[in-house]
Amino acid sequence: MPPKTEWQRTGASQSRRKHESLVLGLLRRHGSLTRGELGDLCRLSRTTLYDVVGALMDSGAVSASVPKVAGRGRGRPAEKLSLNPRAADLLGIDFARQAVRVAAMTTVHGSISSASEPHGPDASWEERVDVARRLTRTLTGGTLRLDALKGIGVGVTGPVGPLEDDSPGAIRRNAVSALVSERFGIPACLDSNTRLATLAERTWGAAIDEQDVLYLCLSHSVGGGLVLGGTLHRGAHGMSGQFGHITVDPGGEACICGRVGCLETVASIGAVLDAHGSAEDVPQLVAALDVGDQAAYSALARAGAHVGKVLADLCNAFGPSVIVLGGELTDTGPALMEPLRRELDANVTCRGSRTPLRVRPAKLGEVGAALGGLALLLHRQPAGTGRRVPLSPAVL
Amino acid sequence: MPPKTEWQRTGASQSRRKHESLVLGLLRRHGSLTRGELGDLCRLSRTTLYDVVGALMDSGAVSASVPKVAGRGRGRPAEKLSLNPRAADLLGIDFARQAVRVAAMTTVHGSISSASEPHGPDASWEERVDVARRLTRTLTGGTLRLDALKGIGVGVTGPVGPLEDDSPGAIRRNAVSALVSERFGIPACLDSNTRLATLAERTWGAAIDEQDVLYLCLSHSVGGGLVLGGTLHRGAHGMSGQFGHITVDPGGEACICGRVGCLETVASIGAVLDAHGSAEDVPQLVAALDVGDQAAYSALARAGAHVGKVLADLCNAFGPSVIVLGGELTDTGPALMEPLRRELDANVTCRGSRTPLRVRPAKLGEVGAALGGLALLLHRQPAGTGRRVPLSPAVL
Repeated sequence: MPPKTEWQRTGASQSRRKHESLVLGLLRRHGSLTRGELGDLCRLSRTTLYDVVGALMDSGAVSASVPKVAGRGRGRPAEKLSLNPRAADLLGIDFARQAVRVAAMTTVHGSISSASEPHGPDASWEERVDVARRLTRTLTGGTLRLDALKGIGVGVTGPVGPLEDDSPGAIRRNAVSALVSERFGIPACLDSNTRLATLAERTWGAAIDEQDVLYLCLSHSVGGGLVLGGTLHRGAHGMSGQFGHITVDPGGEACICGRVGCLETVASIGAVLDAHGSAEDVPQLVAALDVGDQAAYSALARAGAHVGKVLADLCNAFGPSVIVLGGELTDTGPALMEPLRRELDANVTCRGSRTPLRVRPAKLGEVGAALGGLALLLHRQPAGTGRRVPLSPAVL
Repeated sequence: MPPKTEWQRTGASQSRRKHESLVLGLLRRHGSLTRGELGDLCRLSRTTLYDVVGALMDSGAVSASVPKVAGRGRGRPAEKLSLNPRAADLLGIDFARQAVRVAAMTTVHGSISSASEPHGPDASWEERVDVARRLTRTLTGGTLRLDALKGIGVGVTGPVGPLEDDSPGAIRRNAVSALVSERFGIPACLDSNTRLATLAERTWGAAIDEQDVLYLCLSHSVGGGLVLGGTLHRGAHGMSGQFGHITVDPGGEACICGRVGCLETVASIGAVLDAHGSAEDVPQLVAALDVGDQAAYSALARAGAHVGKVLADLCNAFGPSVIVLGGELTDTGPALMEPLRRELDANVTCRGSRTPLRVRPAKLGEVGAALGGLALLLHRQPAGTGRRVPLSPAVL
């Protein structure tokens, strides 16, 4: 059994939730109401209503204010209750390569907001967590109420296996988790940011309700995630989705993972820019395509063909219903996608079916993994404690 | 909703099952009993007992005989009831490349038996189904009771997608399914035989209770199956497990699938025998290894390295907890396995975990897929109608 999260421990009972949602619905409809007006409308007992309102105020979802009216000698006017538009009770944080992205969600309102901030390559983990706190404060209008927070889902780069493991990666992840938990006051749930992006695309993006989803992110690194049979697949040691380290060129370049010729060595942003020779970033590469630069086309054709080939192999292995492609490299459009699609179609074994394989662009952009942190919490299964995240019903 | 199978339609209610299992338990313990003796032991009402016994006799699970006793003028002696040791109510049939294999199961006794018969390369489907009927009769002691059959799970070669598809493969499968159903009198559930073998290894073989299993069969063709999160994974169009058609040598040999350099072109039995040059079958290859034939070692080393590399890629993609290797080529032992293991370990990305990846030989041998046909029925989810087969609890 996974340890219960703060959110689960404080989870209101079924009937309490019903009463809360009744009160929140009335406040949403009427804007602001006194306790007396609420009581007339909701027909709960006075004791129940005061309990429910007290809990909602404690959680930060509802705030009270005293209206400024001209004194008529009849004492203090009754407090008006209203929804707190800035109350966030779930946070998704993505510690990307050189940026921190935060998505904040108010589950009682069902609203999500997000923000992002880049940082230098040498930022310490303390600095990155400080950026996350700053962004959270921005999203909550300067009133970050840590006591109202019910969960934090955190994405980190690289494979995420069991936290009890003694590998360097696990030690680093434990340290990040401990730091986030300490600075935000509640336990954090960690997973790989490409897996979180996969979950987000399945929950709100390009693959809603799809049963078998392959998500591939072509960015500074190359990785992805799988939803299989409707659930996020982590693999036996949390090692799934390492698509960037499938070998495509046995005699090729050295990879950061210690081997040679991995997909990442030919299809990451850096690899494509190196192959091109002069563009310094993806926008420059797109500009080169716009003026018909053949070197740009051929650099992307090579990357696209390798990606298409790997995707075909993966399709032959487990037959996704849809492939979702994300990451900045996909901004290059058909120069990448056409050779990719060609190689995919040429190598996929579809003798058994004439249903075309669907390939779609990701919808959620750079904030996908932070949203995935929220999705992880909504599906209430911390990484490392259980392997599968049931994706329905969505709480939104 | 999948259409209900015969088995589901005739499924007895909870209390009926309890009564049946009580009666069967008494007959198992006492050998044979009259209805009167049964009634004294089981304490069911006479009506209920007669109903239950009648149903068990109708299903063929229980048979009745009149004991031959010296007549004492007191009329006909009471019938003795006993378990019918030959009653089979579930069949698994594997239409392998040049052989038919049948596994018969008596669910009430929990016993399984199996038989196999080779046939020529040109045997028609009618002939192959006749072989299946003949084998079934052998297993049931010559008394094939078609009316007692409750399910048939059938394995066929090649990918198995939705039956409503209009591809040549689907048309062939529909014909096989119709033929089996017609000859055995009840609907047949089809799936690919390597997926069925995967299910059997997960249910009774080398991967019992494992959550994420990769099964690879190295035989005349190369293919496999996946159990992910404890359930058999079919993929969106039933296209999972086509590991034999992952490209390993882009400039290599033509493959039966129409492409070049697939794993099957280097790691099937035929490919390895071709590479060796003189052995005509796997036993000859094993004999060559025994006398230190270097050509045999190097043919297997090449195949093993390619297989190890593909397995590493698949591990990077979805992180199985165990790999199970089956098929006759694995009879060559370390000559294949050592280069395989070396290449697997060198290419798998395990930065996040120090848990070694387990590779095990399959346990169920050539009858695995036929057993998988039974497992498919026990988990009650026909292929093509639903995508996932929950594997627990086993009925055995």
